[in-house]
Amino acid sequence: MPRTTRGTPLAEELGNRVRTAREVARISQETLGELAGVHRTYVGHLERGEVNPTLYSIVRVATALEVDPGELVKGLHL
Amino acid sequence: MPRTTRGTPLAEELGNRVRTAREVARISQETLGELAGVHRTYVGHLERGEVNPTLYSIVRVATALEVDPGELVKGLHL
Repeated sequence: MPRTTRGTPLAEELGNRVRTAREVARISQETLGELAGVHRTYVGHLERGEVNPTLYSIVRVATALEVDPGELVKGLHL
Repeated sequence: MPRTTRGTPLAEELGNRVRTAREVARISQETLGELAGVHRTYVGHLERGEVNPTLYSIVRVATALEVDPGELVKGLHL
């Protein structure tokens, strides 16, 4: 069952950046999931800031989106 | 018990960057752990690339080191 709680600001900001990069790439959450090797539903949770992704997940998603992982986390703070 | 396996190249590169930033800041692993709110032994594992840190851990450590979290993950790839 999807979590219904809102994410934290930090995770939400990362999620917004992932969503924006995915929209720029014009691919669906499902396609991003396939390219990144993560489940489609994980992409949804990630974009809504509902998960605290690991370094590997961040790098996998960034690679699939053809963006530098540094761009996804630049300037994030607690 | 500490893991004795070597980390992966991706996690090792992040660990090297954390260690370098910590040495630049001239603080011990213990002090970094206190500042970042993580256990001292976690800092050791992180610097050796033995853990797959979460976004929150990366941002906490970066904040404690007064570096941008983007600098810690910039250019990392699988």
